[in-house]
Amino acid sequence: MILDKINQPNDIKKIPLEEFPQLASEIRQFLIESLSKTGGHLASNLGVVELTMALHNVMDLPTDKIIWDVGHQSYTHKILTGRKDGFENLRKYQGMSGFPKRCESQCDSFDTGHSSTSVSAGLGYVAGRDLKGENYRVVSVIGDGALTGGMAYEALNNASELKTNFIIVLNDNKMSISENVGGISQYLGNIRTAEAYTGLKMSVTKSLNKMPSVGPAIVKKIHKTKSSIKQLFIPGMFFEDMGITYLGPVNGHDIRQTMRVLNEAKKVEGAVIVHVLTEKGKGYEPAMRHPARFHGTTPFDITNGIPTSSGNKASYTDIFSTVMRKFGDRNPDVVAVTAAMPDGTGLKRFRNMFPDRFFDVGIAEQHAVTFAAGLALGGLIPVVAIYSSFLQRAFDQVIHDVCMQNLHVVFAIDRAGLVGSDGETHQGCFDLSYLSLIPNMTVMAPKNKWELSDMLKYAVAYDGPIAIRYPRGEAYDGLEEYREEIRCGKGEWIYRESGILLLAAGSMVKTAVKIREMLKEKGYRVSLVNARFVKPIDTEIICEAAKDHGLIVTLEENVKSGGFGEHVADCVSTRKLPVKVMIRALPDRFVEQGNVGMLHQEVGLDPEAVCQSILEEEAI
Amino acid sequence: MILDKINQPNDIKKIPLEEFPQLASEIRQFLIESLSKTGGHLASNLGVVELTMALHNVMDLPTDKIIWDVGHQSYTHKILTGRKDGFENLRKYQGMSGFPKRCESQCDSFDTGHSSTSVSAGLGYVAGRDLKGENYRVVSVIGDGALTGGMAYEALNNASELKTNFIIVLNDNKMSISENVGGISQYLGNIRTAEAYTGLKMSVTKSLNKMPSVGPAIVKKIHKTKSSIKQLFIPGMFFEDMGITYLGPVNGHDIRQTMRVLNEAKKVEGAVIVHVLTEKGKGYEPAMRHPARFHGTTPFDITNGIPTSSGNKASYTDIFSTVMRKFGDRNPDVVAVTAAMPDGTGLKRFRNMFPDRFFDVGIAEQHAVTFAAGLALGGLIPVVAIYSSFLQRAFDQVIHDVCMQNLHVVFAIDRAGLVGSDGETHQGCFDLSYLSLIPNMTVMAPKNKWELSDMLKYAVAYDGPIAIRYPRGEAYDGLEEYREEIRCGKGEWIYRESGILLLAAGSMVKTAVKIREMLKEKGYRVSLVNARFVKPIDTEIICEAAKDHGLIVTLEENVKSGGFGEHVADCVSTRKLPVKVMIRALPDRFVEQGNVGMLHQEVGLDPEAVCQSILEEEAI
Repeated sequence: MILDKINQPNDIKKIPLEEFPQLASEIRQFLIESLSKTGGHLASNLGVVELTMALHNVMDLPTDKIIWDVGHQSYTHKILTGRKDGFENLRKYQGMSGFPKRCESQCDSFDTGHSSTSVSAGLGYVAGRDLKGENYRVVSVIGDGALTGGMAYEALNNASELKTNFIIVLNDNKMSISENVGGISQYLGNIRTAEAYTGLKMSVTKSLNKMPSVGPAIVKKIHKTKSSIKQLFIPGMFFEDMGITYLGPVNGHDIRQTMRVLNEAKKVEGAVIVHVLTEKGKGYEPAMRHPARFHGTTPFDITNGIPTSSGNKASYTDIFSTVMRKFGDRNPDVVAVTAAMPDGTGLKRFRNMFPDRFFDVGIAEQHAVTFAAGLALGGLIPVVAIYSSFLQRAFDQVIHDVCMQNLHVVFAIDRAGLVGSDGETHQGCFDLSYLSLIPNMTVMAPKNKWELSDMLKYAVAYDGPIAIRYPRGEAYDGLEEYREEIRCGKGEWIYRESGILLLAAGSMVKTAVKIREMLKEKGYRVSLVNARFVKPIDTEIICEAAKDHGLIVTLEENVKSGGFGEHVADCVSTRKLPVKVMIRALPDRFVEQGNVGMLHQEVGLDPEAVCQSILEEEAI
Repeated sequence: MILDKINQPNDIKKIPLEEFPQLASEIRQFLIESLSKTGGHLASNLGVVELTMALHNVMDLPTDKIIWDVGHQSYTHKILTGRKDGFENLRKYQGMSGFPKRCESQCDSFDTGHSSTSVSAGLGYVAGRDLKGENYRVVSVIGDGALTGGMAYEALNNASELKTNFIIVLNDNKMSISENVGGISQYLGNIRTAEAYTGLKMSVTKSLNKMPSVGPAIVKKIHKTKSSIKQLFIPGMFFEDMGITYLGPVNGHDIRQTMRVLNEAKKVEGAVIVHVLTEKGKGYEPAMRHPARFHGTTPFDITNGIPTSSGNKASYTDIFSTVMRKFGDRNPDVVAVTAAMPDGTGLKRFRNMFPDRFFDVGIAEQHAVTFAAGLALGGLIPVVAIYSSFLQRAFDQVIHDVCMQNLHVVFAIDRAGLVGSDGETHQGCFDLSYLSLIPNMTVMAPKNKWELSDMLKYAVAYDGPIAIRYPRGEAYDGLEEYREEIRCGKGEWIYRESGILLLAAGSMVKTAVKIREMLKEKGYRVSLVNARFVKPIDTEIICEAAKDHGLIVTLEENVKSGGFGEHVADCVSTRKLPVKVMIRALPDRFVEQGNVGMLHQEVGLDPEAVCQSILEEEAI
């Protein structure tokens, strides 16, 4: 095995070039076998094997800086920097991250997870290098999907002013997680069909700039036939118009060609885009056929690509998907908006049935939210489905464009709370805080699958900005019999005793049921209220509970600062209610990857830990 | 006066075309005279007089929707929709807003204030129109400055898929508030010099599309001379590459030409950009010479443009400016980042002295913050100066790129708290909450001008993400003698008695001094602590105070949810301290424009109101 010779950074440079195809093939085999056991991001990684090898051969790590946009495509990079063994515990608790991490390797130069940050970060490095008089290369590797994100464009706009070398590798596989969308995608599509890169033709040597201009006759003709000239698709004019040199396109599975163009890119003074064409899932038939499904995969059977174990229970995403389809039938004004996540959010079925009323705007959360504000003013009822951690991108738009105008936009916030193996970049730890601080916003969280459905109905019938946050994974199917009508700002008594009140938001109701059982066993009398609304909170229920409870324990999968518990504590304090409040929330630190159950233990939100802290409090 | 005939929407349509130049001139005169008394956004409004007149003539209001990006250029629109009289109380408490407001007029179709939202909002309207089977025009008017904002590009990328009419007017005056920056700006510069729009040449009639293609020889030649062809600057190829029809450029001060191209734009099926060249400050010599100074102006003398009254006291911005210049001298690693606000943030002096270490990235807060993360990793100490309400745009980048990697980035947050006449879109009401919920973040607020200087020094010497928020306007110059060294998470006793503790954050220390005087007059014993740190809060001082104070009153110019007061209350509750907490903060609603003193009264944060509420509390 050639792969056995790769044990630390730059080992690849000792491998003869003619063995590269064999090495690429071994890396692919390794990735497929590893990920079939652990799960992980397969398709994107299979696409960049040769590109990564070329980069490692042409660059000098760790001196040079490679920044992987989003970062889920960094597996080959991890292998080539000596982290092959880490794949056994990929994305597991205390195991290797599925994203670049500076704490893992000196060869990881910027931690990523969210999209479209790499050009900005790279530009920062470049400015640092130049001002400090240092001498290293900076390479940002960005996908065509990530290029739909506005901040990548902000960075490109800024990069055009550079006078020193900065290489942007545009890894173009025509995909975000799903098919890529929008004008730039169409444009890249046209470049792809242009004559492939052949080295000399697009050499960036100065001589080219000295070539005689096309004659005045041609200029005139071109001016007259602007529409026709569009069919020429001069490769990269779009980028060159921004002041960025364009090289390509090059076949990203041809290592020699890719190395050649990268070497040429090193000579450019200023920002240069190297346009590399790759195929998501390359080398593994099932992943090539279903790149979206193999974007992030659970363990699977290598022979056919079928998941080896699949949860039988419906996820919250499934429930959302079903309810949205029903809305589609019942109310022609309901429309759905996603930022490049039709699969992940569960909107695919809605899209298939109501294509005119489905909007995939690309990786563009900011635009998604303000677009929804426009939809609402245009007479529709937009349901914007964005993951909790990605909605952070549109914080200002939620405030400024939706809530300030008090518009009826429904936010369906999936992946709220701890998400597991994607780790700190993807945990939905902040939404209860950052949403409930916004005037006019209503924030809900369902206790189980039926309640998600009821809340969605409530939200669509509501008038004003309203958010429902629900966690990743299996939907809780307990407490089916508790299905009181949803009323604004009203919680729901599940068990009504006296003594201790467990006041739980969303996913924590399920935990609270267990905590209650434990406390009951110890002889305590314990009530349980499902908060339902995090904003406005149910002050009435709190006042009522204060009459015959000595302790209210709030439970939420969100940081404490600005979260549900602090709102409850404030209510108790403002009204001088004779009851103690204990807040159980996520800690004030970033929570790493791992099984959600383990993470709950780590942060003290598992039933045992909460029960223990209540017993301690009661013992005082 | 022709202007006297303009009293309601569409009155302009009754004015003969040949009187338009006279009307334009009268509108300019009206704006200059009005604003010389009230202050307001002058330069941008003088630039769009003819463009607005052309739009009002070609469109049918309020049926058609015009969306003004940022919105400070909507004054002529306000005049033409019958709000001339409102200018007497422009930007005043309960007066006419300086921005479009749907509550003011049916002709205002989207409330704006922040940049780069108009294309997204317009697209939403268009989708609503088409799905509801309605039949109106949608026009988004966006500046070339706003086009540096990523979300505008996200929207353009999305707009390319449109099959129905949507008009984007690109109001190109080469400026953000200051000179515009970046690749697109350069590109537009090149278009500007291209042959001016002459109507037929770029007609969008179908016939053009049927013109014979340029021959294969030319194609070949073009492929061979890509660099040369760049000198052709086929107008608008950049946009056409994105799938958006381009019309222009047209002289935006020529009403007939502008109307002609707008009428043509109405015929396009799909999104169309109308590129209009205007001059900021047009028609008023001082504003043309100093467009940045006349972007937003205080009252001025018409004869020479000089402000009629200027505050003699230094503003916090001035202090920041001075301190940054000193840092520039003393520490070569200190660099400054602004998102298109070198003037407003006070970084102009730093730019002039250290141009290599100054980065204006355009209206691009997201990029600014991640770029700063890269700068920090590149060995520099970036100071990112962004207004409180605009930093909301970069919330995710602060979390994901700075705090998650625990990088040393200094955030200098001006315009924190109530800002006055710009109104709800610009109030900095949320930063204490949205910053202190982020792990690893440190948040400070200075009591007076010396403390801002001390805090900046502390922040630059610190290691990790750190924010200093300070208000708009005059810096408090009281309490000069209290200048204890800044220590992490430590507050400062100003007056130490017992009984009532006023625990104030930043700007509220000044208010607290007055409250204390009032309470002392009533015979109360009152302590005052300057919090300094909002995160981490000084738990030690709170515990100490709880020993001989019965009431802690927290004061902050920030919403309560997730703010300073809730953190203090949580500390008291968690530690079971025997002291009551009263939180005085901004209310959970958007606060409109007006004199800051008046607004403080309205929200109950003036000394009298707080004093009264303390007396009531004490009376219980």
